[in-house]
Amino acid sequence: MFDSVELGQSVDNKTFKEREKELRTRLLILQYRLLELSEFPVIIDFAGVDGAGKGATVNMLNTWMDPRYLRTIGYRAPNGEEQGRPRFWRYWRDLPPKGRTGLYLSGRYSLPLIQRVYDEIDDLEFDRHLAEIIRFENALIDDGALILKFWMHLSKDQQEQRFEELAADPTQSYRITEEDRRNHERYDDFVAVSEQLIIRTNRGRTPWHIIEGADPNHRYIRVGEIIEAELSRHLDAWERRKAAKTSASESNGFIDTGRTTVLDTLDLSLRVPKKKYRDLLQQYQARLGELGREAFTRGLSTALVFEGQDAAGKGGAIRRTVWSLDARMVSVQQFAAPTEEERAHHYLWRFWRRLPDAGYVTVFDRSWYGRVLVERAEGFATEDEWRRAYNEINEFENQIVDHGTLLLKFWLAISKEEQLERFQEREKSPYKHWKLTDEDWRNREQWDAYAQYAHDMIQYTSTSRSPWVLVEGDNKPHARLKVIRTVIDHLEQKIDEHA
Amino acid sequence: MFDSVELGQSVDNKTFKEREKELRTRLLILQYRLLELSEFPVIIDFAGVDGAGKGATVNMLNTWMDPRYLRTIGYRAPNGEEQGRPRFWRYWRDLPPKGRTGLYLSGRYSLPLIQRVYDEIDDLEFDRHLAEIIRFENALIDDGALILKFWMHLSKDQQEQRFEELAADPTQSYRITEEDRRNHERYDDFVAVSEQLIIRTNRGRTPWHIIEGADPNHRYIRVGEIIEAELSRHLDAWERRKAAKTSASESNGFIDTGRTTVLDTLDLSLRVPKKKYRDLLQQYQARLGELGREAFTRGLSTALVFEGQDAAGKGGAIRRTVWSLDARMVSVQQFAAPTEEERAHHYLWRFWRRLPDAGYVTVFDRSWYGRVLVERAEGFATEDEWRRAYNEINEFENQIVDHGTLLLKFWLAISKEEQLERFQEREKSPYKHWKLTDEDWRNREQWDAYAQYAHDMIQYTSTSRSPWVLVEGDNKPHARLKVIRTVIDHLEQKIDEHA
Repeated sequence: MFDSVELGQSVDNKTFKEREKELRTRLLILQYRLLELSEFPVIIDFAGVDGAGKGATVNMLNTWMDPRYLRTIGYRAPNGEEQGRPRFWRYWRDLPPKGRTGLYLSGRYSLPLIQRVYDEIDDLEFDRHLAEIIRFENALIDDGALILKFWMHLSKDQQEQRFEELAADPTQSYRITEEDRRNHERYDDFVAVSEQLIIRTNRGRTPWHIIEGADPNHRYIRVGEIIEAELSRHLDAWERRKAAKTSASESNGFIDTGRTTVLDTLDLSLRVPKKKYRDLLQQYQARLGELGREAFTRGLSTALVFEGQDAAGKGGAIRRTVWSLDARMVSVQQFAAPTEEERAHHYLWRFWRRLPDAGYVTVFDRSWYGRVLVERAEGFATEDEWRRAYNEINEFENQIVDHGTLLLKFWLAISKEEQLERFQEREKSPYKHWKLTDEDWRNREQWDAYAQYAHDMIQYTSTSRSPWVLVEGDNKPHARLKVIRTVIDHLEQKIDEHA
Repeated sequence: MFDSVELGQSVDNKTFKEREKELRTRLLILQYRLLELSEFPVIIDFAGVDGAGKGATVNMLNTWMDPRYLRTIGYRAPNGEEQGRPRFWRYWRDLPPKGRTGLYLSGRYSLPLIQRVYDEIDDLEFDRHLAEIIRFENALIDDGALILKFWMHLSKDQQEQRFEELAADPTQSYRITEEDRRNHERYDDFVAVSEQLIIRTNRGRTPWHIIEGADPNHRYIRVGEIIEAELSRHLDAWERRKAAKTSASESNGFIDTGRTTVLDTLDLSLRVPKKKYRDLLQQYQARLGELGREAFTRGLSTALVFEGQDAAGKGGAIRRTVWSLDARMVSVQQFAAPTEEERAHHYLWRFWRRLPDAGYVTVFDRSWYGRVLVERAEGFATEDEWRRAYNEINEFENQIVDHGTLLLKFWLAISKEEQLERFQEREKSPYKHWKLTDEDWRNREQWDAYAQYAHDMIQYTSTSRSPWVLVEGDNKPHARLKVIRTVIDHLEQKIDEHA
């Protein structure tokens, strides 16, 4: 594979100066077009052979382009807070906002490559890791991102020569690390694994650009010109699509046929008497308190998701659940409309950021499911976006579960009559009326539509690995006990598995 | 001290119900006034004796008030990323935005208390830590924050009784940890140290409210009523001041007398010939590359601040400095106008967040000094705010230096003529003209005023522990070499001290 790029291409200094001048002007103009539009981010990855000029190329781009809108990020082995989360947590965290460009060194391809070369993982695990990368890239591309991947190459002789040159120069020898030398000895292994890596991750939407790295002038110009061409193409296509899209008809997919939903199958008459409730609640909270401490000690993290109609009792259930947990290990996160910064990222970004570290509990009071509920209902997400979201959410949750986090999703269901009663009660109460907004009444008018959205959501995202727990909510004591009992059961099981 | 609160106060259930009803309504109303105004945050701390109901009180407040605008944060022993930064980094990080309320458990008072009781620190270190807390609180109060500190008390007998009750109840016994028991044995030490702590940190603007913790009803009502009274008073005073302030005259303190500034003493004719520059640059970058690796290995972190007139060459000097550093250990942060989220916090908040972790380098391209430069010039900060800022900045930098971080501050100085030449050159260049804005020309008109602001800044914030390095900038080669040479010298010294 790499022989075909060992062509000895080079650019003399005079030609370089001329081409550089034009190139950087065009790059700047594109950068401002990107910024002005601010509708998608650009992600540029640099991978490849040590000594092939990845860092120098990034420095050059920082000189050519406006550095205020570039961000350079390099990775090392995952640190504590990174190890405590799913593998892709740090890559999600570091995504550039729309309109900006991120330059990545030793990024997501680095770890599987090195682990495979040093036989820390086998082929199967290597493949699995690459498949995860592809899913990550697809999620971003579906959201509009432009991803450019550069593979910088040197032949074995060129690498050796490069290291010898550096070693001979006392002002440069510090650049060669022991790791570089160790890797150089494995050059052939690196090439073999790299070939596999490139073949398996060279997709139509995210191809690899293999760059001959020996001549700096050639390398800079080549990378710059590819960025220019691809960014220009992406911007043009984006603007064309935008112009064409205005006429596209969007649908929230609701057909009012009085269809029975999975929510209709719930027995909302389930009740727990007051006295029994008090006894059980105390007993459950005690048990949950013990388990919470145990989970913390073992580094088991927990994510609890609460969704449900307005006034379904999410807040009350959450408070009773976290009551017995140490406030220092639990965080209740409420998700309303996204902030300016959040809107400038992929919709999953704000949830990725909040995933619990090892041992901690995060409660999501409303969650990523807003994409297929309120965003679907209100047309904030296009039809393509909300339909695609079921799959995106499944993949997101798979990563959480794969990491070993306990993920539980509760749908609190109430009847339309019960909701009305609670709304009226809230109107009368001096300290509850803030809970009731005009929006709640408006949402209530869409009751049947929301029921179908919830039905679809449960159908597509209740998987064996992360099922929905449907909670009969008309009787608050019953609902609260069921929630806490469920958390207890799963936590016990998780701790047993871990023992 | 505590005898005087062991009064056996209690509130019967009927009275509690009545008072609770009124209280929570009033608290909600205040919470919305706070939110609507959104001009200051509320910080509520809970400290005191184990078993006195700190966590339960926080839970109760979450029930009474609108939890969407409350945030509960509890602390444990500092983790990796917290240890890598100055002590107060995590408390700055977790400050609520203006208009919101933060509830803190085991907060900033917890560590010095426990360390002193277990003799891990002596009286001197204890005092020093408390003095730092007071400075932290003062910085927030000066910015308008309301800080409420509750000390929850139980007598030794009451604590013992509380633990016995919990131990006897199988559904509650999990609440008592070994740490609690260990602390209980040291009850008398805790009381002695707590008294000292309270006496030394009981300031007029942030008094302690000591609460008798034995009776839950009493405790909830007492805490709630104090919050209500203080928040109401703070809001009233704020609105009165606001009404009165409109007529206050603000000054940027500039008197145009052609005064000589410290910048006039620089020899801007200093030059380095091209050939010598190239040789030295390569040599310096090599040395800095070595030192950077060494510092990373030792966990020494570095913060480099760059300020200077427009077109003074900050960007170029920064790029040459970071060139030889591993991109994975260095982060260049540019600070323009603050974002929505940043504006909702203390002006130092966004800089605190970016302090480097152990071993890393952060470059601040413009910095907290904006407070006494552009904010002073443009009237974004009131006269009181920018005058106070010199001291706030000194204290901020003291914490950075105390932590062991290498902090270097560069002022890049150019002559007015040189700036004009660079502006004109930028106008002509196809890829530099983006660097030149109308604002640059406007700032240039204020040249003399900015010189005085810089002079004042250097005078008040160039201390022996964190001096300003004034860089003669008319000749770029000279300026760049001086910057890199300075970083090398200080890094060598730091590594020597560390060895």
